[in-house]
Amino acid sequence: MEGADLIAAISILTAGLTIAIGSIGPALGEARTAAQALDAIARQPDEANTITRTLFVSLAMIESTAIYCFVVSMILLFANPFWGATQQAAGG
Amino acid sequence: MEGADLIAAISILTAGLTIAIGSIGPALGEARTAAQALDAIARQPDEANTITRTLFVSLAMIESTAIYCFVVSMILLFANPFWGATQQAAGG
Amino acid sequence: MEGADLIAAISILTAGLTIAIGSIGPALGEARTAAQALDAIARQPDEANTITRTLFVSLAMIESTAIYCFVVSMILLFANPFWGATQQAAGG
Amino acid sequence: MEGADLIAAISILTAGLTIAIGSIGPALGEARTAAQALDAIARQPDEANTITRTLFVSLAMIESTAIYCFVVSMILLFANPFWGATQQAAGG
Amino acid sequence: MEGADLIAAISILTAGLTIAIGSIGPALGEARTAAQALDAIARQPDEANTITRTLFVSLAMIESTAIYCFVVSMILLFANPFWGATQQAAGG
Amino acid sequence: MEGADLIAAISILTAGLTIAIGSIGPALGEARTAAQALDAIARQPDEANTITRTLFVSLAMIESTAIYCFVVSMILLFANPFWGATQQAAGG
Amino acid sequence: MEGADLIAAISILTAGLTIAIGSIGPALGEARTAAQALDAIARQPDEANTITRTLFVSLAMIESTAIYCFVVSMILLFANPFWGATQQAAGG
Amino acid sequence: MEGADLIAAISILTAGLTIAIGSIGPALGEARTAAQALDAIARQPDEANTITRTLFVSLAMIESTAIYCFVVSMILLFANPFWGATQQAAGG
Amino acid sequence: MEGADLIAAISILTAGLTIAIGSIGPALGEARTAAQALDAIARQPDEANTITRTLFVSLAMIESTAIYCFVVSMILLFANPFWGATQQAAGG
Amino acid sequence: MEGADLIAAISILTAGLTIAIGSIGPALGEARTAAQALDAIARQPDEANTITRTLFVSLAMIESTAIYCFVVSMILLFANPFWGATQQAAGG
Amino acid sequence: MEGADLIAAISILTAGLTIAIGSIGPALGEARTAAQALDAIARQPDEANTITRTLFVSLAMIESTAIYCFVVSMILLFANPFWGATQQAAGG
Amino acid sequence: MEGADLIAAISILTAGLTIAIGSIGPALGEARTAAQALDAIARQPDEANTITRTLFVSLAMIESTAIYCFVVSMILLFANPFWGATQQAAGG
Amino acid sequence: MEGADLIAAISILTAGLTIAIGSIGPALGEARTAAQALDAIARQPDEANTITRTLFVSLAMIESTAIYCFVVSMILLFANPFWGATQQAAGG
Amino acid sequence: MEGADLIAAISILTAGLTIAIGSIGPALGEARTAAQALDAIARQPDEANTITRTLFVSLAMIESTAIYCFVVSMILLFANPFWGATQQAAGG
Repeated sequence: MEGADLIAAISILTAGLTIAIGSIGPALGEARTAAQALDAIARQPDEANTITRTLFVSLAMIESTAIYCFVVSMILLFANPFWGATQQAAGG
Repeated sequence: MEGADLIAAISILTAGLTIAIGSIGPALGEARTAAQALDAIARQPDEANTITRTLFVSLAMIESTAIYCFVVSMILLFANPFWGATQQAAGG
Repeated sequence: MEGADLIAAISILTAGLTIAIGSIGPALGEARTAAQALDAIARQPDEANTITRTLFVSLAMIESTAIYCFVVSMILLFANPFWGATQQAAGG
Repeated sequence: MEGADLIAAISILTAGLTIAIGSIGPALGEARTAAQALDAIARQPDEANTITRTLFVSLAMIESTAIYCFVVSMILLFANPFWGATQQAAGG
Repeated sequence: MEGADLIAAISILTAGLTIAIGSIGPALGEARTAAQALDAIARQPDEANTITRTLFVSLAMIESTAIYCFVVSMILLFANPFWGATQQAAGG
Repeated sequence: MEGADLIAAISILTAGLTIAIGSIGPALGEARTAAQALDAIARQPDEANTITRTLFVSLAMIESTAIYCFVVSMILLFANPFWGATQQAAGG
Repeated sequence: MEGADLIAAISILTAGLTIAIGSIGPALGEARTAAQALDAIARQPDEANTITRTLFVSLAMIESTAIYCFVVSMILLFANPFWGATQQAAGG
Repeated sequence: MEGADLIAAISILTAGLTIAIGSIGPALGEARTAAQALDAIARQPDEANTITRTLFVSLAMIESTAIYCFVVSMILLFANPFWGATQQAAGG
Repeated sequence: MEGADLIAAISILTAGLTIAIGSIGPALGEARTAAQALDAIARQPDEANTITRTLFVSLAMIESTAIYCFVVSMILLFANPFWGATQQAAGG
Repeated sequence: MEGADLIAAISILTAGLTIAIGSIGPALGEARTAAQALDAIARQPDEANTITRTLFVSLAMIESTAIYCFVVSMILLFANPFWGATQQAAGG
Repeated sequence: MEGADLIAAISILTAGLTIAIGSIGPALGEARTAAQALDAIARQPDEANTITRTLFVSLAMIESTAIYCFVVSMILLFANPFWGATQQAAGG
Repeated sequence: MEGADLIAAISILTAGLTIAIGSIGPALGEARTAAQALDAIARQPDEANTITRTLFVSLAMIESTAIYCFVVSMILLFANPFWGATQQAAGG
Repeated sequence: MEGADLIAAISILTAGLTIAIGSIGPALGEARTAAQALDAIARQPDEANTITRTLFVSLAMIESTAIYCFVVSMILLFANPFWGATQQAAGG
Repeated sequence: MEGADLIAAISILTAGLTIAIGSIGPALGEARTAAQALDAIARQPDEANTITRTLFVSLAMIESTAIYCFVVSMILLFANPFWGATQQAAGG
């Protein structure tokens, strides 16, 4: 069952790296957007509503890339198509 | 079935890295655009409509590169042409 | 039981690297947002409430990417599906 | 059929990396252009039309490099000339 | 008992790297937030209380990512689930 | 036919990397030029014609380096002289 | 006793790298905070007390991440749980 | 014919990397020059002629380094002296 | 006595790298703090005493991380617990 | 004729990398100089002659380093002294 | 005497790298401090004495990290404890 | 004649890399100096003579480091002392 | 005499790298200090004497780290203690 | 004569890399100093003499680190003590 071990090891490594690397961009990006929003509110308190609304739409859009990574990471751990095929082959 | 294992391992690794690396650029890019939009709204509240519209078109365009990566990642996991050929060869 | 050792070793390495790499982005991102909030409060003390509220929502959103990494790290250590399968195979 | 496996593995790896690396430049580039356009609109609302038009032409040009990468990535997965030759040789 | 040695070696390496890499982000992040707080106090001494309170909440949130890393590092050294299983297998 | 497999694998890898790496520079470069053009239009709307004309000439020149890469990438996939020689040798 | 040598070698390497890498962040971070404090004192000498107090709390918090690294480094050298287990096994 | 395969593989890899790496510098360089030219035209519309002329001479000079790379890349693919010698030796 | 040689070699390498890497952060950090202190003195000569006192406390705190590294480096060279155990085992 | 193949492979790789790496510096350098010249012309149109003359001398000097690389690259491909010696030895 | 050769080789490599890497930080750090001191003297010639005194104390403190590295480097070359033990073992 | 091949291969690789890496610094350095000279001429046209003279002396000094690299590169290709010794030994 | 060859090879490599890496920091550092001194002289010609004196003391201090590297490099080439021991052992 | 070949190969590689890496720092450093001198002359033409004199002393000091590298590079090629010993041993 050597091949299955290799697939399991690669899946574990990839699942971790995917979410780890994939969280750098969104975290820094959301921070930049939020920081600018705070700055904008401080300069134009009267526009706080428009700014906050635009901020939340943007954060959701940026968060989406982190969620893509999280989804792939979860698929690799719990719904890995290659692992299923290998297990089936071993049990068949 | 050693070759199939190699293909499965490479597919898993590539699927994860593709979406992980591919999410850095769009996340930072969308953040930059959104931050600038918030700044522009704070400076010209009267132009909020034009700014928001341009922002959403731009975000969609930037998000498209993340979606290319997500599509390739999904193809590698669930519609991998090489895996199909290998399975066929093994079962033939 | 060589394959299980490989999976255990990879799981340990990945669990550590995932949270280590995954903490860089959120830590720097939260710092940037908080620093800007402090700056905004100093410039517009009257808007401290709006600013603080927006800050906490943003921090929660950024922290979420760190939590994704922590969750994957914990899953790898304590609820690793591949380890379970390997142990089952060895004990079966 | 060892050589075919190698070609398949390399094709998968390259297809993923090509679109992953190739999306960083366009994503950051489009973001920069869009951010500047938003800034320009905020400063010169009367020129919004000229600015938007120039923005879209530029975005299309920048997106073209992402599309080159996507095209190569798709060719490698679904119209790979070397894979065809290898399959032909194996089946001949 | 070769497998156990490998797991022990990987655990030691990972425990050290996790806290070492994981301390870079929080240290720089906390420094940035604190530096901005000092700047804000110098500009608005009257708001020192609000600023200090926001600073401490932010520092706690940033420190949390360092603590995640420390927790994982300690788990790997003193409550390593894979080591337990290996020792049990060796002693069984 | 081992040598042909090596050449095919290297050609695939190189074709992908060439266009992937080669798209970073032009994408960022075109973005910089376009961003500056938008800024220039906002500052001197009367010179929009001269600016746009100079912009398009410059974009074409920068795009040319991306096209060099795309051409080499296509040659490697569809008109590879070494592949032809190898196939001829194998068929001769 | 080959396994014990491997564990000893890894422990030595990790102990050194942990404190070496772990000292970069805190050193730069403390420097940034202290530099800003000196700047703040020069601008608002009357607030020197508040500034110094906030500075010391912040330095302590940043130093804490360096101390985590030092603690892990010392544990690896003088209270290494894996080394103890290995020595026990060798002596048992 | 193992040596010829090695030469072919290295030639392919080098041809791709040469133009890929070699396009980064000129693309960014031309962008910088063009961006500055656009800025100069916006500031001094009366000097547009002198600026455009100097711009084109500079772009040509910068493009020359990209062309060196393209020439070497083409030589490696279609007029490779070592490949010729190897083929001759094999056919002799 | 092969294992002891490995431990000695790793100890030497780690001792050197620890102090080498560990001196980068403190050196740059102390420089930043001292540079800011000199700037502060030039701007507020009357506060030279407060500034110098805060500078020295900060330098001591930053130097502490360099000293951690030096201590670990000296322990590895002259009080290495693993070397002692190995020598004892060899001499026992 | 194994040694000759190695020399040919290394010559090809080096020829490509030399001009590829060697074109980055001059391309960016010429761009910087030309950008500054355009800026200087815009600020002092009356000195356009002196500026253009100094620009061309500087460009020539910077281009010289690219030409060194091109010369070495051509020597490696078409006048390689080691290849000559190897061929002579083989034919002798 | 193979082990002694390994220890000698590692000692030589480490001695060189320690002082080479360890000189980067102090050199840049001292330069920054000295540059700021020169700037401060130019702005406040009357405080030249205080500035110079603070400069020399700071330079001494920064130089100390370079000296740690030099000391470790010299110990490795001329008072290496592991080399002594190895020579003793060989001569015993 | 295996050793001579190794020396030839290393000489070729080193000759190329030396001039390639060695051209980055001078190219960027000369560009910086020339750009500043152009800026200085634009600001002080009356000092054009002094500026141009200082510029040429500086360019010559910076070019000298590129020439060191070119000289070493040429020595390695055409007056390599180790190659001579190897050839002599082979012919002796 | 295999061990001696290894020691010689490592000594040569280390001697070169030590001075090469070790010259980067001092060269950039001295340049920064000197550049600031020139700036200070231009702003305060009356303080040229104090500035020049402080400059020379600082340059000497920064140069000292380059000299440490040069000394270690020379020791490795001409007074290498390990080489002496190896030669003695070979000749004994 | 295998050992001598290794020493020759390492000497060639090190000689090239030493001058290549060692020319980056001085080239950039001299450029920075010279650029600042040109700026200073433009701002204070009356101090051109003092500035030029300080510039030349500084350039000489920075060039010294490049010369250290050139000297080591020449020693490795033409007065290599280890090569001499090896040749003597071979001829003895």
